[in-house]
Amino acid sequence: MSLLVTGSIGIDHVETPWGQAKDVLGGSAVYFSFAAALFGPVRLVGVVGQDFPDNFRELFDTHPIDLAGLEVRAGSKTFRWHGRYHEDVNIRDTIETQLNVLAEHAPAIPDVFRDSQYVFLANTHPGLQRELLGQLTRPRLVVCDTMDLWIQTQRDELLKILSQVHGVALNDSEACQLTGLKDLVAAGQDILRYGPKFVIIKKGAHGAMLVAGDDVFVVPAFATAQVTDPTGAGDAFAGGMMGYLATQPLFGPRELRTALACGTAVASLAIESFSLDALRSTDREKFRERMAQFRGMLQFEPPW
Amino acid sequence: MSLLVTGSIGIDHVETPWGQAKDVLGGSAVYFSFAAALFGPVRLVGVVGQDFPDNFRELFDTHPIDLAGLEVRAGSKTFRWHGRYHEDVNIRDTIETQLNVLAEHAPAIPDVFRDSQYVFLANTHPGLQRELLGQLTRPRLVVCDTMDLWIQTQRDELLKILSQVHGVALNDSEACQLTGLKDLVAAGQDILRYGPKFVIIKKGAHGAMLVAGDDVFVVPAFATAQVTDPTGAGDAFAGGMMGYLATQPLFGPRELRTALACGTAVASLAIESFSLDALRSTDREKFRERMAQFRGMLQFEPPW
Repeated sequence: MSLLVTGSIGIDHVETPWGQAKDVLGGSAVYFSFAAALFGPVRLVGVVGQDFPDNFRELFDTHPIDLAGLEVRAGSKTFRWHGRYHEDVNIRDTIETQLNVLAEHAPAIPDVFRDSQYVFLANTHPGLQRELLGQLTRPRLVVCDTMDLWIQTQRDELLKILSQVHGVALNDSEACQLTGLKDLVAAGQDILRYGPKFVIIKKGAHGAMLVAGDDVFVVPAFATAQVTDPTGAGDAFAGGMMGYLATQPLFGPRELRTALACGTAVASLAIESFSLDALRSTDREKFRERMAQFRGMLQFEPPW
Repeated sequence: MSLLVTGSIGIDHVETPWGQAKDVLGGSAVYFSFAAALFGPVRLVGVVGQDFPDNFRELFDTHPIDLAGLEVRAGSKTFRWHGRYHEDVNIRDTIETQLNVLAEHAPAIPDVFRDSQYVFLANTHPGLQRELLGQLTRPRLVVCDTMDLWIQTQRDELLKILSQVHGVALNDSEACQLTGLKDLVAAGQDILRYGPKFVIIKKGAHGAMLVAGDDVFVVPAFATAQVTDPTGAGDAFAGGMMGYLATQPLFGPRELRTALACGTAVASLAIESFSLDALRSTDREKFRERMAQFRGMLQFEPPW
């Protein structure tokens, strides 16, 4: 398995109605990596500034996350994000975003990573996603994330990357925005016209939906009252999904379904503590237990 | 099986972005009855005015719905509701509500219905729900619905009826309003303190959640692009749920789970046409097919 992720690595300040965590490790590629590492090795590509704390780097040592693609750029500062969640944790305000090194040029994909077969392009400018993808020599499964900003301002670039990926993950509101449709199944089916073989629509606390041809698969979120910090839930979801898929010989409906369930279960663990705390302490045993609970939560017998 | 429902019977005018239906049969007890009738006979208790069309009454002839509790009150007018759905069908505006006969005294429960063992008290004033319940001699399973209005204005009365029922069904926003909690699992568990053995939290297009002691069960909605008229979806859901439960000797987690799934599947059929058209033409075979599709939509295998 050679799973590569490109995305942000940042220093977060997170506030919730129940507490806060200041100057902690965050970023889409980081949440993704720790989630995917449950299934096997992960190759991380990202860039930080020279202010990136040594002890953050050490947090990766316990997991099979290869940092050969982590560029520490001299003279630059690390991406910072400060957010505040409402009591309804589906709602958050961004207090401050300092793009810093993310506003400069992208990191290069190191030669030893160019043969990566499984690729997740976390949310960034779609032109940059294409540039990164262009450096890979034999991708077998490529999935990208995106966001409302690019749908609004970089539609042409976004459609280009969509024609080059196997799957795309996006939020429900973004799926509607991209297609002009209000119904999620219809929106998912419409996005398939742009090229992807499957579309994953993330619905936050309401779970996720997969549309692949005529196949529609839905998972609710894992129902829990233990939400401490929802930051990175979507990236952990993607990490669980891709981590599982990277162990599979095929990507049919059966594999995609299990992948969505894996993503949901990992995400439910990720949000139980601030920053990467819960995800870092999740081992296969804990994950297996959560998956069993999740299956139990969903199972029912037919009436007759 | 002796399943009784009390609730509204009305004349609806429904508008959607795709069409409209004027002066059609509607009402909570009606949607409930046609859904529950898939599982066995239903006893309907409700009141209409003398303007209630004869051909509406004939619509019930094809189904095992006993109208002995349908009072046609001379000199009164039938309840009327006029609503308009947005392109996002989760949002609707009520254009006009004419309570008419619903603003008068409640219908009596006929003597032949007093031995009903399974009871659904559709949404109405909680004092009235208690009065209706008081007329029953040997209820075995009682579930009530409620709404934001009673939570705001009749909290004491609502808590009284909650202490007398086995289950309560309410919307996600109502569960939060009743408990002051934002998390649905926590809200459901809190409501159990008032007396019910189980709480069903309805999340519209996002499905439903059941909280019963430590047991939490979640079902997403059936993912479909074929929504024609969402009116009555919640009542059809309750009808499918109670219809199934009324055939069961026990109401444990296993039965409640299947009940929620039955409710979801029936509701997904109900919204495919205006008014009762889709529900009336649903037979056991069609329902069984939908349940199988729904199970397929949810199934996944564990990763290891």
